[in-house]
Amino acid sequence: MASSHTGLEFDVLADHLALMLAQEDLVSIEKVIRDMSPSDLVDVLEREDPDDRAIIYRLLPREVAVEVFERFSPGMRADLLTGLRDEHVVGVFEHLDPDDRVSLVDELPATVSAKLFSGLSEKERALTAPILGYPSGTIGRHMSTEYVRLRPGMTPREAFDHVRASGDGAETVYLLMVTDDHRRLEGVVGMRDLIFALDGDSADGDSRDDDPAAEPITVRDLMKSPESVTASEDAEKAARRAVRTTHLVTPVVDEENRLIGILTVDDANRIIDRADEEDAARAGASEPLDRPYLITSVTTLVRSRIVWLLVLALSAILTVQVLEMFEDALATVVTLSLFIPLLTGTAGNTGSQAATTVTRALAVGEVRLRDTWKVAWREVRVGLTMGVLLGMIGAVVAGLVYGMDFGLIIGLTLVSICTIAATVGGIMPMVARAIKADPAVFSTPFISTFCDASGLIVYFLIAKAVLGI
Amino acid sequence: MASSHTGLEFDVLADHLALMLAQEDLVSIEKVIRDMSPSDLVDVLEREDPDDRAIIYRLLPREVAVEVFERFSPGMRADLLTGLRDEHVVGVFEHLDPDDRVSLVDELPATVSAKLFSGLSEKERALTAPILGYPSGTIGRHMSTEYVRLRPGMTPREAFDHVRASGDGAETVYLLMVTDDHRRLEGVVGMRDLIFALDGDSADGDSRDDDPAAEPITVRDLMKSPESVTASEDAEKAARRAVRTTHLVTPVVDEENRLIGILTVDDANRIIDRADEEDAARAGASEPLDRPYLITSVTTLVRSRIVWLLVLALSAILTVQVLEMFEDALATVVTLSLFIPLLTGTAGNTGSQAATTVTRALAVGEVRLRDTWKVAWREVRVGLTMGVLLGMIGAVVAGLVYGMDFGLIIGLTLVSICTIAATVGGIMPMVARAIKADPAVFSTPFISTFCDASGLIVYFLIAKAVLGI
Repeated sequence: MASSHTGLEFDVLADHLALMLAQEDLVSIEKVIRDMSPSDLVDVLEREDPDDRAIIYRLLPREVAVEVFERFSPGMRADLLTGLRDEHVVGVFEHLDPDDRVSLVDELPATVSAKLFSGLSEKERALTAPILGYPSGTIGRHMSTEYVRLRPGMTPREAFDHVRASGDGAETVYLLMVTDDHRRLEGVVGMRDLIFALDGDSADGDSRDDDPAAEPITVRDLMKSPESVTASEDAEKAARRAVRTTHLVTPVVDEENRLIGILTVDDANRIIDRADEEDAARAGASEPLDRPYLITSVTTLVRSRIVWLLVLALSAILTVQVLEMFEDALATVVTLSLFIPLLTGTAGNTGSQAATTVTRALAVGEVRLRDTWKVAWREVRVGLTMGVLLGMIGAVVAGLVYGMDFGLIIGLTLVSICTIAATVGGIMPMVARAIKADPAVFSTPFISTFCDASGLIVYFLIAKAVLGI
Repeated sequence: MASSHTGLEFDVLADHLALMLAQEDLVSIEKVIRDMSPSDLVDVLEREDPDDRAIIYRLLPREVAVEVFERFSPGMRADLLTGLRDEHVVGVFEHLDPDDRVSLVDELPATVSAKLFSGLSEKERALTAPILGYPSGTIGRHMSTEYVRLRPGMTPREAFDHVRASGDGAETVYLLMVTDDHRRLEGVVGMRDLIFALDGDSADGDSRDDDPAAEPITVRDLMKSPESVTASEDAEKAARRAVRTTHLVTPVVDEENRLIGILTVDDANRIIDRADEEDAARAGASEPLDRPYLITSVTTLVRSRIVWLLVLALSAILTVQVLEMFEDALATVVTLSLFIPLLTGTAGNTGSQAATTVTRALAVGEVRLRDTWKVAWREVRVGLTMGVLLGMIGAVVAGLVYGMDFGLIIGLTLVSICTIAATVGGIMPMVARAIKADPAVFSTPFISTFCDASGLIVYFLIAKAVLGI
């Protein structure tokens, strides 16, 4: 029974495959990959270059191929399709879930995707169309249109038989949607509740007229009130809410509460993962990558970072200008320049601490826009407390080494910049959210630059006052 | 049908509740919360102070109370329990899932949890014991011990009946574990496959001797090879692998492949969420919070940040020492000090770009330790490319404003520090992983400090060479 690999086994396997690829020994490769789990296959394929990946992929049995494909990132899917022969591509495309099909469209050139769609069967095209109707960025774009619908009046047995008769292609049969005659969502029923509500003695076949005496249990009695999302909602927000319900599936409805699809918990997780990855990348001043790091070209890596780096370097010219303003003070007391990196670094760290915390709280919905003043007031107090603690230490250390004057300057500056940096760091993500920008973009890097400049001004003003220059 | 709230409705609701709490109008509160979904209740309760939270919580019906409790963070669970009366606490504790019960133990004082355990029923204590046997940090600590086991020889009907008879308290009946006589895991069967394999005409009752002529389908035929995790494995790693399988449930086995529990996808997600939150917090130089931001006290916020800030400030003393080494140069050419924040800032940004990307790649398993040299070589090239681009711009701008010499100094310094910073930023998370530290800890803040110091040395060495001082 192929359990998942440990790190070491995996390394051996990867080396082994590389050798077989070099020798073009397709028979051996096929033998090795036949025993691998889809997770391991994804791990291996993510590390191969595009040509080798296409070779290995073509050797996979159809069902495994589709499962592996669905686990790839959008960028890798597009790469792979361009590496496969036409008949392979059409086969994979037909067997994808409708929502995965749609997300591919966003990656492929329009001509390619148009060709792929024209090759789709009638049925699959009908399932894909509603998803394409929603703009990318909405949750409608990620929903599945293959679900099982029940009526509230059905008995558990009727419902169970209906699932067995119609649920074959459904994304899931574990949470069933209950709608009225106008397709309006009334509730959801777990397969588990349905199973335990089945009467023990009736056959699987037609049993509609059984038991006319006792009041029969119906789907309505088993039904729970659904926590649904609206198709036009922002994908990340809706996905986070769906995951928080801890249900396997969340119904997707239109503005009139009509059921139009379902969102599975693993699709929701994929959306959140992607959003978190974006946030993490932007907090680190780069754009998220579409493909695994090791197979991303150096050019693409540079492109994901250089714009940010340039913008930040240009905004850092502000610090040069601030220092120019105080060039005289620097010339008079050279010692002042020694503390520049320490002070700007501390300001930057304090700012990004606050920004990281508030950005996260915004993302998971713990903090809302109306809380802006609450956040500001908390950060003022947090910054001031940390500034006082740090300032006292700084004053003593700097005082001992560079004299009383410098102790005073460093102490006062640390108190001020910690307070300013924490407050600005806390508010900036809220401002970003208010102007509908990505809070993560506004966090760490920009805040650092801002804190650098304002920290320097405070530093030199205090220094000039204390030293009387 | 209570669908989930929009932002605005939520604000109105929160204000409304605050008013009713102030008036101690429990009847109205009960009426309002009765119509709210568990998600909304969690959102509301997370924003109340501990006393009000306990008041509202006590008004919830039992089933809803347990569901809401399970969605709280560990810290909030502990808070809430201390705010409830004893008889409430015992009730909640008895109805929790065994794994949630164990995670509470880590939060509560030992005397409190001992008392709670002594109040547990025999059955629940037996379910909890195996989980407590694994150290915290392992996946065994998060597994559920309530699952349904099948034998490979069962017919679909027998298996289905077994689930109905024994699956009542199980965490899930949607993925069923198949074991041999020695409890060794042989495979898993989806409830879906079981349902579709049921023969249409046999009764739900005893049917073991039906159809002796035809070769009957058994669980063995429906069984898939499981992707399992080992109970002693690191929780985050195992959870990531479990989620990647896209299965609802992952079997947890011991070293001898004996089944001892299951890991549900939502428990796996909670582990990953928590790990990502930790990474994000540490990359922003603070410790993750146990409770939502707005109800975390200022003192706790300070405590989550101050140690980091202190350590970083102390390590920044390195930069003061570096600058002291070059005090003469600074005194001779004051203009040199103007570029200090710009250069250290750029080095810090370049370093954290690389660190963020590699930390993420390590966390999701795209990069392994054996790839260290590959990573270093990629980052050398990325850093050099960005350095050359930025250096050319810097040389021209600085050259025009401050003269040829400064153009040359700034240009050369940018090329060098970008290359160094990207390389160090890429390697540091690998080093952290190698010495079994958290890569996120080593990323942004420490790398900034290191880049600051080494960048300054490079800068002054180049400046002294070019200016001949």
